Amino acid sequence: MNDVIGTILNHRSIRHFEDKPLTEEQIRTIVSCAQAAATSSFIQAYSIIGVKDPVKKKKLAELAGNQEYVEKNGHFFVFCADLYRHTLIGEKEDKNVEASLESTEKFMVALIDTALAAQNAAIAAESLGLGICYIGGIRNNLEEVKGVLHIPDRVIPLFGLAVGYPAKVTGQKPRLPFEHVYHENGYEQNKEVNLHQLDVYNEIIANYYQQRTNGVRKDHWTEQMAAMLEKQTRMYMKEFIQKNKLDLR
Amino acid sequence: MNDVIGTILNHRSIRHFEDKPLTEEQIRTIVSCAQAAATSSFIQAYSIIGVKDPVKKKKLAELAGNQEYVEKNGHFFVFCADLYRHTLIGEKEDKNVEASLESTEKFMVALIDTALAAQNAAIAAESLGLGICYIGGIRNNLEEVKGVLHIPDRVIPLFGLAVGYPAKVTGQKPRLPFEHVYHENGYEQNKEVNLHQLDVYNEIIANYYQQRTNGVRKDHWTEQMAAMLEKQTRMYMKEFIQKNKLDLR
Repeated sequence: MNDVIGTILNHRSIRHFEDKPLTEEQIRTIVSCAQAAATSSFIQAYSIIGVKDPVKKKKLAELAGNQEYVEKNGHFFVFCADLYRHTLIGEKEDKNVEASLESTEKFMVALIDTALAAQNAAIAAESLGLGICYIGGIRNNLEEVKGVLHIPDRVIPLFGLAVGYPAKVTGQKPRLPFEHVYHENGYEQNKEVNLHQLDVYNEIIANYYQQRTNGVRKDHWTEQMAAMLEKQTRMYMKEFIQKNKLDLR
Repeated sequence: MNDVIGTILNHRSIRHFEDKPLTEEQIRTIVSCAQAAATSSFIQAYSIIGVKDPVKKKKLAELAGNQEYVEKNGHFFVFCADLYRHTLIGEKEDKNVEASLESTEKFMVALIDTALAAQNAAIAAESLGLGICYIGGIRNNLEEVKGVLHIPDRVIPLFGLAVGYPAKVTGQKPRLPFEHVYHENGYEQNKEVNLHQLDVYNEIIANYYQQRTNGVRKDHWTEQMAAMLEKQTRMYMKEFIQKNKLDLR
């Protein structure tokens, strides 16, 4: 196993960081790595906002559901899908780009571009001995997040990335078995097979919790997921995205 | 610079591969690395289809706009946003998860989850001396792609990833300068600054083409982007996604 694969397989989310800020050099390296990711037709449809201002970090931590590690970390990045730059390009070049920018296709392109860049940033940070945690919680209230960070239309903060020196390292939860995620030549649509796979994975997850909690927890993955999905969360998103002139047609 | 950052910064898209298939071990390693990526609330909302069947590869290459490297590579992965598994979970656990699964929020979660996993796969492959190319072209005609790969509702093939031993290595195009992508504490909304940045980057890109083509090409980035965005492509996407019971509310 080489160092790259070792770093990738060793990933775990870190939620407790030392009180030690990243250096400017570390921030630049992480952003350069983000930018080295592939980008659809060279569109580069993202921006990254680094938040240092303690007042803004505190506010974002509250907005993300009182997650302390949004405030207390080495650096807090906000990864944004960004088609504002391309709105300006349309004006500058006097071309009608509105229909494209408002399309579901370009919304998807911007989301994918941003996530590819973010994952490079995450791996680069981890390779430097830093820990990371993605913060989807900033999507709880994007209108206010946009206000705090002065973000224009056609720019959607997708998630935060808290980065810093790990103060507490947690375990890794077992992922879905290889055969459940990887299909060859076609998607496995046999429902009996699919349901059996869920049972198998439930056992794996139940064993994991049982061992970690000395038998107290025995959750199944499908229970966890059903309970999570039964609650309707962030249902304002469609309206919000369309108000931001994206995913309209 | 460590090996991980070296690998990340050395990325370039490879479009010519040797006629040498990946081993099963390489495929497993790449998929394991994909699965090690962070996933929103442990939802694991993606599947990966590996295509070996030469007839299917040829068909996918045609559908992606006659891209030869979709057919000729060491292995072809199709990364799919996947909420079908969670549809089954709702049935199994007898919970109403429909509204969640149909939400724009969960559509975004699935796209982000899939892209994070894919970028891990890409970096892992590159660390093994393999080259990669993302194939957005499979989105040209997703209905047919779904047919070829027997893909159910709530599963959207987002992009392909061609992987293999590089037969021809190309250069790296310069990305947007650091200051254009990275904002501190708030988004830089001064339009004069934004437009000046586009001019600066246009010069960088023009110089790059001029040097690579002995002065023949002098394209500006904003020209390229405006010309691309003026064309409305894949405008069927909204209807297609909603027909697949995603991004409906």
